[in-house]
Formats: sequence, structure tokens, C-alpha cells
Amino acid sequence: MATPSSDSDLTRIMFGVNESSIKGYPHASISSKSAFDWTLNKIIRSNTTGFKLLFLHVQVPDEDAFDEVDSIYASPEDFKDANRKDKIRGSHLLEYFVKRSHEIGVACEAWIKKGDPKEVICHEVKRVQPDLLVLGNRGLGPFQRVFVGTVSEFCVKHCECPVVTIKRSADETPQDPVDD
Amino acid sequence: MATPSSDSDLTRIMFGVNESSIKGYPHASISSKSAFDWTLNKIIRSNTTGFKLLFLHVQVPDEDAFDEVDSIYASPEDFKDANRKDKIRGSHLLEYFVKRSHEIGVACEAWIKKGDPKEVICHEVKRVQPDLLVLGNRGLGPFQRVFVGTVSEFCVKHCECPVVTIKRSADETPQDPVDD
Repeated sequence: MATPSSDSDLTRIMFGVNESSIKGYPHASISSKSAFDWTLNKIIRSNTTGFKLLFLHVQVPDEDAFDEVDSIYASPEDFKDANRKDKIRGSHLLEYFVKRSHEIGVACEAWIKKGDPKEVICHEVKRVQPDLLVLGNRGLGPFQRVFVGTVSEFCVKHCECPVVTIKRSADETPQDPVDD
Repeated sequence: MATPSSDSDLTRIMFGVNESSIKGYPHASISSKSAFDWTLNKIIRSNTTGFKLLFLHVQVPDEDAFDEVDSIYASPEDFKDANRKDKIRGSHLLEYFVKRSHEIGVACEAWIKKGDPKEVICHEVKRVQPDLLVLGNRGLGPFQRVFVGTVSEFCVKHCECPVVTIKRSADETPQDPVDD
């Protein structure tokens, strides 16, 4: 077995991961999983000691509020409670990727940020300086993209590191391709 | 030493490589070399038996004609001669990448096509179905791009496989960044 390299020798691959929009419970989105699986199968392969995976989940504050339509915010305590819930959801999501990385034996780190995903991802790339950013993508056509927008297109243009976008496989696309 | 895997088990990485615009002799462009070096250092690392590299060089017919301003085409034989020269130039370029791959011990293949690089690269991706396409990029700003255009932007949008674009490092940028 190879000796683990020091952190600076490793190829550091960052992922922007998000929750599925079609399941209630905080599951990883289809495209986040596709991006992760592609990296394991095609890039890391058997060389598990040569890489470190960095998982970033960006929570959109407004979107989270919409999820809580039944909640009534009557005191500062209620907001604290909502923040706690967001934190639990985000950590459940990251747990999936961290657990799988550990099972395979690849070093990893994971963290949560709040804000606009595309802006935050670029900001974190600048701060963390990964060797590669891997993003999932729903593979929408130009017409669908106008209404949905894609984080990956923005990051390919603006992030200060090489970026690769992985589309969902055709057999994993849900009935409405905007879902993920 | 690991046993070489069968071809279908390997991660197949395709490169679009081109000649330098600043040197007379057919040298690889700075950005083609950067893309190749990045892939060796960050992706392949020590796992040389897990990958196969596919080098495609697309020759632009018109551009080649401009290089031959002193030539007079008076008979069909003259065109044959020019085609032969192009072929030699292209094979010199590919020789650089094939030689380096062999030295490192990574399986590879290389070939030449004529046409519009962006169209031909996408066509060859469709035919060859690599796991990843790696392209070099001069890292031009939006103003410079308007006049120069970039093959990589087109391929990121239209190629049927994941695409990663590698910019030249700042210390390798020539005085005029449009040169490569």
C-alpha cells in the first residue's frame, strides 16, 4: 500500500454539492452524485492516496425560507431554530459524501456556506485554491436554461481554477428535466 | 508494477493540441503544453497504467496557406508538396506528445485532421467518445476574445463529453497575450 502523501502533494478536487429538489429528505441531487461518481471512476480510480476531496454546500437563504412556509417567525428564537434546521439538513447532505469518501479511503473535507451558490463557489475557489472544481449539471437545453440559469456556466467563466461540468446520465433524468 | 488494464478499463483523455504561433519550427503551443503537463501532474500522477491519452491535431487549411506565402502553386504536384509539408509539421508536433507519454509510460494515440478546429474536435469527440477532453487556453480577457475567438469556449458548450480548459500560467504568457 502506498504511504499517504502530505496534503500539499495531493491533487485537491473541490465539488459544489446540493440537495435534490425532488425528494423531501436532504438527499444529494442526481447531478451532484453523478459528478462525484464520475470523479471516483474516471479520475481517482485506484489511486486513492493521491487525492483530497473538498465538498462545499452553499445554502440559499431565501430558498430555505420557502421550504418553511408553515413556520411562523415571531421571535429571534424562531430564526435560531430555522438556522439550526438548515444546518442539520446541510450536514446530512455532506455526510453522504464524507461517508462514501471514507469508505473508499480518500481524504476529504466538507463545509457549508450561505449565499448565492455561483458567487460563493467562486469566492471559495479563490480562498481554497483547489486544482480542479467539479460541478454537476442538469444538462438542460438553451430554452430551459433561460429560466433556470446554471451555476456551472457562471463558474466555468469566472472561477480561478480549471472547472469540469458533469451532466446527469440520460437514464437518470427525471420526467421534468428541471428537477434534480 | 501493476498489470496494464484492457483498453476499455482505461480513462481515455483526449487533447486538442496545436502549434505555437510564435516560433517558426513546429513546436507545441504554450497552452497545449500547459494542458498536457496539468493532466500529468494533477490527474494521472503515479497511476500511469490507468489512463490512455488521445492527441488530436487539427490543421486549418487556410492558415497553412498563409504560412506558404512564398510558394507558387502552378500544378497539382505543388499542392501535393504542400500537403506533404503540412503532414510533416503535424507529425513533428504530435511526436512531442507521443514521446513524452512513452517516457512516462502512459498509453497513447495521436492523429491529424484538417478543418475548423472547434468543429473537428467536437466531431472527433462524438466518434471517439473519450471520458474527458482537455484543452489549452490563452486565458484572454473578454475584449481580446472578441477578435481572437476561442476553440475551448465552443467545445465546452457543444462537445458530448466533460471538457476542462487549462489556462497558461501567468509566467508563461508572452508579451502579446494573443500569441501562444
